[in-house]
Amino acid sequence: MEDAHGTCTLHPSPSDLVLNQFDVDMECCNSIRFLAVDAINKAKSGHPGAPLGQAPMGHILFSEVMNYNPQNPFWVNRDRFVLSSGHGCMLQYALMHLAGFPSVTMDDIRQFRQLNSRTPGHPENFETAGIDVTTGPLGMGIANAVGLAAAERHLASTYNTNHVELISHYTYCICGDGCMQEGLSHEACALAGHLQLGKLILFYDDNNITIEGSTELSFTEDVTARFNAYNWHVQTVADGNTDLDAIRSAIQCAKEEQARPSLIRVKTTIGFGAPTKAGSASIHGAAVGAEEARAMREHLKWEHGEFEVPDMVYDIYATHAQQGTEQEQRWWSLWANYQKHEPELANQFKRAVLDRELPEKWEESLPQVSATDKALASRQHSQACLNAISDVLPELMGGSADLGPSNLTVLKKEKDFSHQTFEGRNMRFGVREFGMAAICNAMSLHGTGLMPYCATFTVFTDYMRGAIRVAALSKAGSIFITTHDSVALGEDGPTHQPTETIPSLRMIPNLVVLRPADGNETSGSYKVAIERSKKLEGPTLLCLSRQTLAKNDKTCIHKTSLGAYVVGESSDPALILVATGSEVSLAMAAKAAMDVEIRVVSMPSCELFRQQPRSYKDSILPRHIPKMSIEMSTTFAWMEFVDACIGINRFGVSAPGPVCEKHLGFTVDNVQLCARRLLQGERGCLSDGSA
Amino acid sequence: MEDAHGTCTLHPSPSDLVLNQFDVDMECCNSIRFLAVDAINKAKSGHPGAPLGQAPMGHILFSEVMNYNPQNPFWVNRDRFVLSSGHGCMLQYALMHLAGFPSVTMDDIRQFRQLNSRTPGHPENFETAGIDVTTGPLGMGIANAVGLAAAERHLASTYNTNHVELISHYTYCICGDGCMQEGLSHEACALAGHLQLGKLILFYDDNNITIEGSTELSFTEDVTARFNAYNWHVQTVADGNTDLDAIRSAIQCAKEEQARPSLIRVKTTIGFGAPTKAGSASIHGAAVGAEEARAMREHLKWEHGEFEVPDMVYDIYATHAQQGTEQEQRWWSLWANYQKHEPELANQFKRAVLDRELPEKWEESLPQVSATDKALASRQHSQACLNAISDVLPELMGGSADLGPSNLTVLKKEKDFSHQTFEGRNMRFGVREFGMAAICNAMSLHGTGLMPYCATFTVFTDYMRGAIRVAALSKAGSIFITTHDSVALGEDGPTHQPTETIPSLRMIPNLVVLRPADGNETSGSYKVAIERSKKLEGPTLLCLSRQTLAKNDKTCIHKTSLGAYVVGESSDPALILVATGSEVSLAMAAKAAMDVEIRVVSMPSCELFRQQPRSYKDSILPRHIPKMSIEMSTTFAWMEFVDACIGINRFGVSAPGPVCEKHLGFTVDNVQLCARRLLQGERGCLSDGSA
Repeated sequence: MEDAHGTCTLHPSPSDLVLNQFDVDMECCNSIRFLAVDAINKAKSGHPGAPLGQAPMGHILFSEVMNYNPQNPFWVNRDRFVLSSGHGCMLQYALMHLAGFPSVTMDDIRQFRQLNSRTPGHPENFETAGIDVTTGPLGMGIANAVGLAAAERHLASTYNTNHVELISHYTYCICGDGCMQEGLSHEACALAGHLQLGKLILFYDDNNITIEGSTELSFTEDVTARFNAYNWHVQTVADGNTDLDAIRSAIQCAKEEQARPSLIRVKTTIGFGAPTKAGSASIHGAAVGAEEARAMREHLKWEHGEFEVPDMVYDIYATHAQQGTEQEQRWWSLWANYQKHEPELANQFKRAVLDRELPEKWEESLPQVSATDKALASRQHSQACLNAISDVLPELMGGSADLGPSNLTVLKKEKDFSHQTFEGRNMRFGVREFGMAAICNAMSLHGTGLMPYCATFTVFTDYMRGAIRVAALSKAGSIFITTHDSVALGEDGPTHQPTETIPSLRMIPNLVVLRPADGNETSGSYKVAIERSKKLEGPTLLCLSRQTLAKNDKTCIHKTSLGAYVVGESSDPALILVATGSEVSLAMAAKAAMDVEIRVVSMPSCELFRQQPRSYKDSILPRHIPKMSIEMSTTFAWMEFVDACIGINRFGVSAPGPVCEKHLGFTVDNVQLCARRLLQGERGCLSDGSA
Repeated sequence: MEDAHGTCTLHPSPSDLVLNQFDVDMECCNSIRFLAVDAINKAKSGHPGAPLGQAPMGHILFSEVMNYNPQNPFWVNRDRFVLSSGHGCMLQYALMHLAGFPSVTMDDIRQFRQLNSRTPGHPENFETAGIDVTTGPLGMGIANAVGLAAAERHLASTYNTNHVELISHYTYCICGDGCMQEGLSHEACALAGHLQLGKLILFYDDNNITIEGSTELSFTEDVTARFNAYNWHVQTVADGNTDLDAIRSAIQCAKEEQARPSLIRVKTTIGFGAPTKAGSASIHGAAVGAEEARAMREHLKWEHGEFEVPDMVYDIYATHAQQGTEQEQRWWSLWANYQKHEPELANQFKRAVLDRELPEKWEESLPQVSATDKALASRQHSQACLNAISDVLPELMGGSADLGPSNLTVLKKEKDFSHQTFEGRNMRFGVREFGMAAICNAMSLHGTGLMPYCATFTVFTDYMRGAIRVAALSKAGSIFITTHDSVALGEDGPTHQPTETIPSLRMIPNLVVLRPADGNETSGSYKVAIERSKKLEGPTLLCLSRQTLAKNDKTCIHKTSLGAYVVGESSDPALILVATGSEVSLAMAAKAAMDVEIRVVSMPSCELFRQQPRSYKDSILPRHIPKMSIEMSTTFAWMEFVDACIGINRFGVSAPGPVCEKHLGFTVDNVQLCARRLLQGERGCLSDGSA
């Protein structure tokens, strides 16, 4: 074990212990290794390379280091663990099984990668209790670990007193070469170093092999120097296959380092122990087969059968798990004491963190817009919402990828979340969209009631789409605030103007996209977002205007959650115009200008409308009345709801916002023209933004 | 100027020259600065901060360093320039104007950010001749610069002889703090250092300010150490506002360094010269206004009016541009000589690079599948296509984000593109999807006929979506090869299974998405992709199966380009099933199983079908016959073409591929059931994958 900084004191175990310990360690590591090999062989599918190499670090974490209680995987002050190299999930399942998590029995391990099993092909928090975050897409787990560590620091700073450390845990993460190559690792780790998240400990499984072969092919950077540049504490373990004491010492050292996150480079052999395949790319992602498994048993002198674990190994893990159980018990005593001495904070902690409930009538704090209020952009309404609800929701925190002054997401009364003030609720993510989103996902999945939001321009959700998707899959309550939601943003031009962005986001399962038409619908959107966030139902994404929006006296906070409702009625409509966001006022203007009976429907959320009962949907959009959508986006998905569309099936243009709108067909005249064509029987896309 | 490595010799100008030179330099820099200020003030929109700070580096590049001929901005051996901080585009427009590019007259500058101007809000290669790549989305330009530098090395290695250097140019790039924070900069720069792209010179405008304020808020990494870790040569210019000789020396030094790319950190003041706003975030993204412009004129002793440039400044640029013109003339002599001595290579260079044409009958090399051939996965057909056409298309090169063995994208006869063998055509991108895509875009926009392809799993297009979008916008001929295109990939589960991915990619304007049903359609897809790539019409994205696909004797290479055509006919169809990719065979099986007259339409590309004449579309999908789509994707956009859908409006599951398909409703039985419901009058999504 070498310390890149030479500042750390080592604490080797006494040598008599080391001798015995080695055999015990190997027995444990090999239990993990063969569980992985056997399960992957049985499934004829999976990734044995990583678990075989990572078994020692995993073993030490789960049998000695980490605080957890397998009987209550949701204990708020447990240490968190992220397997960023999620393809190696048999490592995590084997460790959880040995540790006694009821979610991973031996039967579960035998069902590896089968339908409805609790041991799917990558770790999934929503399938397996005890898995903190869903991983697999590379780099994401590292960013998640940063988010978990940030959540810990924030809660510690918010709730701990001089006498009681209510929240104080470590976050451990294992990643491989792939994660290190991903840009996401740069964003998250640079920010973690900046924030001085000293309780984050990242193991880098440094095995010199990626899928295509040696890392010499594409990956020759000096990772140690790079992480030093990020203000991390870096150590190297020269033999991560068998030198478990070096791993132990490195962890101890990393814990002693308080000011910087720690990277432990662990040199391992991919597929360690497999006689013909170890050290090669061939063992990364395919079952080794029966013959190699047999030879491996011989090679490692492993005399146990398939899916067999020596009792001694179970005993070692049981002893450690018992300590975790006791630690949780002590925590509850601490909590009882805290409630006596800090009744006010304790009440907040109980509601926000333990019970994960919203305060009663919290929604009354949402701004309601009245006829006399000034017309504003929806990003301004959003700013008002955030600042209003943040008073009653101390668990709401977040920020922007360096667009705070444009996204209007700064909480005016709150401090910055920084290493001096971790209790601050304004996060300064820097220009790191993907990292930001993945960090927010993990802050939500920290499971302590935090409601993280993050912001960028609508079009730059493309940069963080991978994290939005995993938020939706893993039911993270992230709130994605996007502004500058159409070509009406103007001069910045097509690189900044979303046209396909919003419809493409609506494709993501379990993501609710909301595009409010004005202040009331913005408040209504926050109502949806906050409730989804707190209940860990999944993420919500808001699309907000840069430009000022006209007001509509029929918009409604509560109806927003229906997804669509009537904002411009007529006694016997011949035509229905369906619009979203800024286009609702255009639809209203067209209604006013035409001598046809027109209903205008505001549809802030297609997803929420889709969830309504058929009767409601038919009442809003009756089948027999011709319907036309108006939205400054691609039209392809609108035919689910309407018969004809006005949209933009092209990229935008650089010009002042109103000029863009006119140039692309968003005028009362063009809406009238298209409405007449619809009434005459035309169907489909009637205006697509082509000149 | 300080050299981080101490290995570089400085060449200061004689002091008598320095004295005069300073005033001249300032006159030039201030010309640029005031063009920026005036244009942005006139537009009342734009980003003055960056051009004011970057004027000195831009000035030296365009007036002394770079080889270019403004009269022929497409000269193949010109130096390339990328403004990665694209919001500061008035810098680039001012420089191009001074240099005499016909595309940027003073009238164009006065039209900054107006409709149909050649000076849009961010640099756009498709609007302004002389702009190499479209920038604005941060980090993208750096990755583009890496791609341009890679293209140069490849062409140099392929075509240069001991006697003639046909291709030998530098790539210059200017970026800011935002670009440095983006993960994309990590991916691209780590790869550039690995590849030893010594002719890449990156200026980092190190001004300590981002939109939210000081970089102290979020960005405190040691950039120099980070780039040293990437194997870059790093220098720092301490005063980039006025010490132009230091910039000159640094460039010279960077050119002398051949083995490593160069980073030049230039310490500047954002908004330099603006008396009240310089050095603050307020000048980043808003016009300074008339008063500040007046005060700035006073402060910088600038006695010229708005949009006025001293003749001396024009003269300096004209002299340098004249040298560029002469350089191009010398290049054409070189080329004439080359044609004599290397007739074979010259022929190839003329066709592939200068004329950018495909060889006659190249498409005959595309594999045609016959009845006796073995059934394969479409990724295997793709492998056959790539290896077949690469023989006749030496300009085809590319690789995967470390998934070569899964994507099957390795050219078997070709070497790796590495610093020892830049002529190699197999690129090893590492696990860097976003960087990979942005690099490919730039290799195409290098304008020398290269046809770059890059590959990953379909679902991980989410990681590179920002670059796919800009490819489509900027008409880059990138070929995006994606495999594992549905839940049928099986055990890897929902993190790896695209369900919304393909429909969401179809939303991107000017991207052609193809999902071939078998070998012939895979060949047909490559025909489309190659033609689009060579003509710089825009990118093409292929969605290929992991699993083996049944063959269909009616599929056709040439009909693929129609987007949709009949592959299973019936004399008088009562029902049309529209399917893509792997689902075509399911549709055929359902047709065979049902006692109803059914037409089966294969629709490899919605975009290509949309482009066909109405008569063709009506002949394939007649309005009066009920139609149902079958695709293992979200259904929301299918209602444009059909009356009912079978799809997956949820995330996938981890299980063997055939189990996944069955679980999610992709069985002959379920298709029959849904078909009957459709015939009975039901409409909409009839099967969405819910259990």
